[in-house]
Amino acid sequence: METVATARAFGGTQGVYRHASDATGTPMTFSVYVPPHAPGQTLPVVWYLSGLTCTHANVTDKGEYRRACAELGLIFVAPDTSPRGDGVADDPAYDFGQGAGFYVDATEAPWAAHFRMWSYVTEELPALIAAHFPADMARQSIMGHSMGGHGALTIGLTLAERFRAVSAFAPIVAPSRVPWGEKALGGYLGADRAAWRRHDAVALIEDGARVPALLVDQGEADQFLAEQLRPQLLAEACDAAGIELTLRMQPGYDHSYYFIATFMADHLAWHAARLG
Amino acid sequence: METVATARAFGGTQGVYRHASDATGTPMTFSVYVPPHAPGQTLPVVWYLSGLTCTHANVTDKGEYRRACAELGLIFVAPDTSPRGDGVADDPAYDFGQGAGFYVDATEAPWAAHFRMWSYVTEELPALIAAHFPADMARQSIMGHSMGGHGALTIGLTLAERFRAVSAFAPIVAPSRVPWGEKALGGYLGADRAAWRRHDAVALIEDGARVPALLVDQGEADQFLAEQLRPQLLAEACDAAGIELTLRMQPGYDHSYYFIATFMADHLAWHAARLG
Repeated sequence: METVATARAFGGTQGVYRHASDATGTPMTFSVYVPPHAPGQTLPVVWYLSGLTCTHANVTDKGEYRRACAELGLIFVAPDTSPRGDGVADDPAYDFGQGAGFYVDATEAPWAAHFRMWSYVTEELPALIAAHFPADMARQSIMGHSMGGHGALTIGLTLAERFRAVSAFAPIVAPSRVPWGEKALGGYLGADRAAWRRHDAVALIEDGARVPALLVDQGEADQFLAEQLRPQLLAEACDAAGIELTLRMQPGYDHSYYFIATFMADHLAWHAARLG
Repeated sequence: METVATARAFGGTQGVYRHASDATGTPMTFSVYVPPHAPGQTLPVVWYLSGLTCTHANVTDKGEYRRACAELGLIFVAPDTSPRGDGVADDPAYDFGQGAGFYVDATEAPWAAHFRMWSYVTEELPALIAAHFPADMARQSIMGHSMGGHGALTIGLTLAERFRAVSAFAPIVAPSRVPWGEKALGGYLGADRAAWRRHDAVALIEDGARVPALLVDQGEADQFLAEQLRPQLLAEACDAAGIELTLRMQPGYDHSYYFIATFMADHLAWHAARLG
């Protein structure tokens, strides 16, 4: 693991790191914020998964998470959204290929060779975090935005014993039923929709996945709300399943990092309360 | 004035605006955050001047000022750092020409035609803010970073009756005595160093300019500290003049927006206490 850059921030250290990933077969870059802590102390880990077109840098620059993480004693990890590079398959659209990994292990050519973001985020990167940072891996939680909200919900529902808190900003809750998701899951996983259900939060809940509670903030002025995000589908699934969903519709807010930053501290406090 | 973009943030509105500037003879872009407020209410205005290479966007993306401005009821204005465009003189260096206006009205060719950032920031833009935003122009304060800290100090010292609070992050305090400043003031104002004193905070204080108090944060790991910033020169001038300077040397902090964001809320609270 190579250190790209570190800087003091809110009494802790914001770092950017790069490593050669076995999962994706590419170099991968990620950021980690470690808050101030006593020598030898380990701290809970919050995973943040980013949305379409993003790298680790968007939330690192604009997410405004460091003050709350410093106050609450949380490590904050932000991976990239896909493998990248000249030897990696790509698509000219912003919503497929590089920058749009959708947190799945692709099975279809040409994507299967490198697009293994599920394995990367759930297996390889956690091992790296455990090895190199003062992380208490028994206390983890996960959140994300948009495509990364989809990732946080599906990973949090699938690995419910690992993640003590799961939340999302403007998530894609039912990718099987919206254009972004149909394109991505069809492209990465193939035409058989049965294979998509493991990567669709609403389908996972319908198929029996359970977490105690979810927190979702959604801007009412979000341009993607009606066609791509459809949080009501998550509300209906949680209602039927007995999952306590706190779905906060936020008047006037759009899909941007101004929205995320506004509610980031709320989410981190909600996570901290569950991380102990 | 044209609205480039607006977004809801922390209950208020973050906007980016563009207008044809008479002062610079170019289009100029700036950002304004207006916090939540009652209809008809006017609010104090904090000016933030940015450093070398920056536009309005750096602090708007990375400054983390909106939460504190929302809590304290402050309008936050971030101008660009120079005129820009194809017809505007430039220099290939990062520290001179476009992106490096140094908050002076240039007198030397070819800069004098457009590089009139003193007039722009102290006269034209305030009139625009007063006309288009719920601003109480009887309650203004000013802060800045690096080159913008120089701007905040020189403008705040010169227009002491206008600005109730003046603070800076890692400012250039004595441009006449450091390489960045000698190059810029020499280039924009000519070789006669007597003309530079109005644009040098330490010289202004030596020549009699007074404010009740100044707040300066400076990272001890700032790569520009010893050669370009030299806050001790400001401390000596304030000491001799009886100006109450709070100079906080911050161990481990560099020159970046991680440093600025860490102490932004402190500065805004300090301003709010003086803005009433």
